[in-house]
Amino acid sequence: MRNMAARYNLGQLAENLRARLVGDPALVIDRVQPFESAVEGDLTWAGKSFISHIRESRASAFIIADGSPLDSLEGRNLLIAKNPKLAFARAIKLFYQEPYRARGISQDLIIGEMSEIGPEPSIFPRVTIGRDCRIGSRVTLHPGVVIGDRVRIGDDTIIYANVSIYSDVEIGSRVIIHSGAVIGADGFGFVLDEEGRQQKILQTGGVMIEDDVEIGANCSIDRATFGKTILKRGVKLDNLVQVAHNCVIGEETVIVAQVGLSGSTTVGHHVVIAGQAATNQHVSIGDRAVVGGQAGVTKDVPAGTFVAGTPAQLSQRWKRAQVLFSRLPEIVERLKKLEEMVKGAPDK
Amino acid sequence: MRNMAARYNLGQLAENLRARLVGDPALVIDRVQPFESAVEGDLTWAGKSFISHIRESRASAFIIADGSPLDSLEGRNLLIAKNPKLAFARAIKLFYQEPYRARGISQDLIIGEMSEIGPEPSIFPRVTIGRDCRIGSRVTLHPGVVIGDRVRIGDDTIIYANVSIYSDVEIGSRVIIHSGAVIGADGFGFVLDEEGRQQKILQTGGVMIEDDVEIGANCSIDRATFGKTILKRGVKLDNLVQVAHNCVIGEETVIVAQVGLSGSTTVGHHVVIAGQAATNQHVSIGDRAVVGGQAGVTKDVPAGTFVAGTPAQLSQRWKRAQVLFSRLPEIVERLKKLEEMVKGAPDK
Amino acid sequence: MRNMAARYNLGQLAENLRARLVGDPALVIDRVQPFESAVEGDLTWAGKSFISHIRESRASAFIIADGSPLDSLEGRNLLIAKNPKLAFARAIKLFYQEPYRARGISQDLIIGEMSEIGPEPSIFPRVTIGRDCRIGSRVTLHPGVVIGDRVRIGDDTIIYANVSIYSDVEIGSRVIIHSGAVIGADGFGFVLDEEGRQQKILQTGGVMIEDDVEIGANCSIDRATFGKTILKRGVKLDNLVQVAHNCVIGEETVIVAQVGLSGSTTVGHHVVIAGQAATNQHVSIGDRAVVGGQAGVTKDVPAGTFVAGTPAQLSQRWKRAQVLFSRLPEIVERLKKLEEMVKGAPDK
Repeated sequence: MRNMAARYNLGQLAENLRARLVGDPALVIDRVQPFESAVEGDLTWAGKSFISHIRESRASAFIIADGSPLDSLEGRNLLIAKNPKLAFARAIKLFYQEPYRARGISQDLIIGEMSEIGPEPSIFPRVTIGRDCRIGSRVTLHPGVVIGDRVRIGDDTIIYANVSIYSDVEIGSRVIIHSGAVIGADGFGFVLDEEGRQQKILQTGGVMIEDDVEIGANCSIDRATFGKTILKRGVKLDNLVQVAHNCVIGEETVIVAQVGLSGSTTVGHHVVIAGQAATNQHVSIGDRAVVGGQAGVTKDVPAGTFVAGTPAQLSQRWKRAQVLFSRLPEIVERLKKLEEMVKGAPDK
Repeated sequence: MRNMAARYNLGQLAENLRARLVGDPALVIDRVQPFESAVEGDLTWAGKSFISHIRESRASAFIIADGSPLDSLEGRNLLIAKNPKLAFARAIKLFYQEPYRARGISQDLIIGEMSEIGPEPSIFPRVTIGRDCRIGSRVTLHPGVVIGDRVRIGDDTIIYANVSIYSDVEIGSRVIIHSGAVIGADGFGFVLDEEGRQQKILQTGGVMIEDDVEIGANCSIDRATFGKTILKRGVKLDNLVQVAHNCVIGEETVIVAQVGLSGSTTVGHHVVIAGQAATNQHVSIGDRAVVGGQAGVTKDVPAGTFVAGTPAQLSQRWKRAQVLFSRLPEIVERLKKLEEMVKGAPDK
Repeated sequence: MRNMAARYNLGQLAENLRARLVGDPALVIDRVQPFESAVEGDLTWAGKSFISHIRESRASAFIIADGSPLDSLEGRNLLIAKNPKLAFARAIKLFYQEPYRARGISQDLIIGEMSEIGPEPSIFPRVTIGRDCRIGSRVTLHPGVVIGDRVRIGDDTIIYANVSIYSDVEIGSRVIIHSGAVIGADGFGFVLDEEGRQQKILQTGGVMIEDDVEIGANCSIDRATFGKTILKRGVKLDNLVQVAHNCVIGEETVIVAQVGLSGSTTVGHHVVIAGQAATNQHVSIGDRAVVGGQAGVTKDVPAGTFVAGTPAQLSQRWKRAQVLFSRLPEIVERLKKLEEMVKGAPDK
């Protein structure tokens, strides 16, 4: 993956990483590496627990947090950043992101009537596109991608192998969809009829994926019953996430692997939902809330709060109860002793 | 998706929806819409909480439950139904379900020896079918569908893009399988040998999917070790559901997203299993039972009961315990106070 | 699936199954069947609970555990094994595993420059391979398999339909990957920038799948941020398992369906992780540990221990607490009574 041409000196890096340099601006860096494996020529990030190990490291330069103790770091090249993780992410991108190169359109493309593809595409072999689609500029479609009818895709979007996109789905620009993801399958709605048979509630709506969304491998984003299931700008889904019909997920919200959002769940912006959590239908999660791993959200979560457990409650409260849960045998023992003292032994 | 030709007057709708009309039988309806977005020309469903808002609505007609208070609804067009959700589902179907239209067989179809396809098929491009298969009438296979050898598929079945069906799988009529689902992969069976190596237990059985089953996106239905894994008539699986080897799921049972059924789980008919629940091997869930979200079913569930929690227990009992779990800090505080009173402060 | 040619007499079976024969070595066996369905001509396994039913069975021979009571089994053909489950697994393999038969390379194969395929391959139609790949001998690639650039695959590996393998993935020999699995998608890493936008942490690493690994349907194994995500020799994953970036899973470890391993989880050898369990980032699970179903592992698990619950704790401890959890209503009732006795009724 290495872009061999990319080498930067510390002066350039300080500028690109929005960091303050203490050290030699002319020193050339070859690679970015995690702390444990960094050697000469490497830039690395020394997180809190690594600061005291900088002296022993063979790395050539270190990203550290603003406010870190600098004594004993004399003579080392330091890039001091307000948000060192962000600076590190920028460094990785600088060194390793390959520039987009249009590969053209495979001659085996199957594409329906009235569909259009923008300039500079990268359409790999074995892609199928339905009719009346609009594909933007510099879009990459890997092998096995299947796109239904009336689908819109913005510019610079990348769709990996074997992704399935049903009809009437809108996808923004700079979206990344990983392999095996399914966008626009029917929402899950049934109702028992007079004969005890499940009757399907037809799902007439669509899906809208806004700009800068990333969708992990094998996710499922269902179409709405009416209207649209919506992932707003910058939403990031890990792998195997389930988004049911009519969910609306707010900007820059992060959802970790195997989370399941039930129908009509509303999630605010900058929310974090940890792995394997789930929601009941129609619940609403406020902006900047955090939902703990494996939590079961049964009612609305206020903005800015951190909830955990099933049913989900304030995390602090849940944690205190959880500690006592483990101590239940001792608690019951204490209760029993007390009963004996109060009632007297013969009573029992 | 809109079938533009479909318009019905209220008289026709009352008949089709098995509802009683209070209002103008000649009024023509253009669309079906949810309550919040219904405007003139629309039929909508006014659930319990919406009845009092009918007066303000611009919709032209309302499906309401039999027995709803009709005062103050004078002058509105009402379709009164025993099961208004069912009537609404029927209305959506009436207006929006497009009639089947055979698209023929893509000329790039790859199909093995001795395989047969019934009349009026819709085989999209990039489909692969093994040998000795029997595909029924009016079957739709979307791009990227891969079908192994000796597979049977009934009439009017729809299989969406990138579904993988292994050899020796039987699929009934009017079945819907959503993208990314995998039917017939090996059941998960291993045993450690003398050298501490996992030896595979070969999975020699198959899978049977009966009529009217719907399987969600990215589900996995494993083949049996011996015999068959069976989804009986009318079973509905949401997305990302795991059905292990030798499971048998009863008629019209509904299983919500991300549920995991362990090997040889038996599920009765008309059961509801909510999202992310799971079962231990060999457990049996009785007819019409309900399993709560994220429940862990470790032993048999009697018919007609509602269980929740891990290990799953009667829901009522679990809920009461759950409430007290959250109050554990207060409970322990009370215990502590009591201990002090009984034992006296100096003792501690 | 039946290999019709395979028939063995009990003498041959005793040798192949490493079992001691009590009975007629010349008796020919036609099939292997589970106890409930075994009839004349069949070999079956009589587990503990079936031993007492051998007398009524019509099966011709029985695998039983060394040390089982033999009285009343006179005249039956017995294969006595130290590990009867292992002997049964060997019997199934003997009778039903078809020998490998090279099918050659479909003429529609799309393969990039500099890629090589070893002898005796079975490359089905609709396979796509990138550039600079090395595919070993006797490799089977089913339809819809997509392989990126610089991928290595060892000998005798089987990859089922619609599997997606990203670039820079190494796969060993005798590996089995089931349909819909995704190997090498980006690890999930983001950091908020100054404008409140999620910035992607580029994932520069790869994935290494060692020999004899089996990966279930619709699993997702992410590539590492730096270095490699590693599944060591003999790891077995059930379906829908999530393995995040930089995980390392030890030899012969078994992971049941829908488990989620967070980033940089380290799992020892011969570990068993039951269904739907999950781990926090950076936790380590020791050799031969067992993690219960739906457990949430928040800190390191010592080797050889059995943990359960969320947060995961020693299973025995968790089970005791869990029993008391269900009794919380009674416990609080007892506490209330005691309070009344100590404080006196008027006080309340």
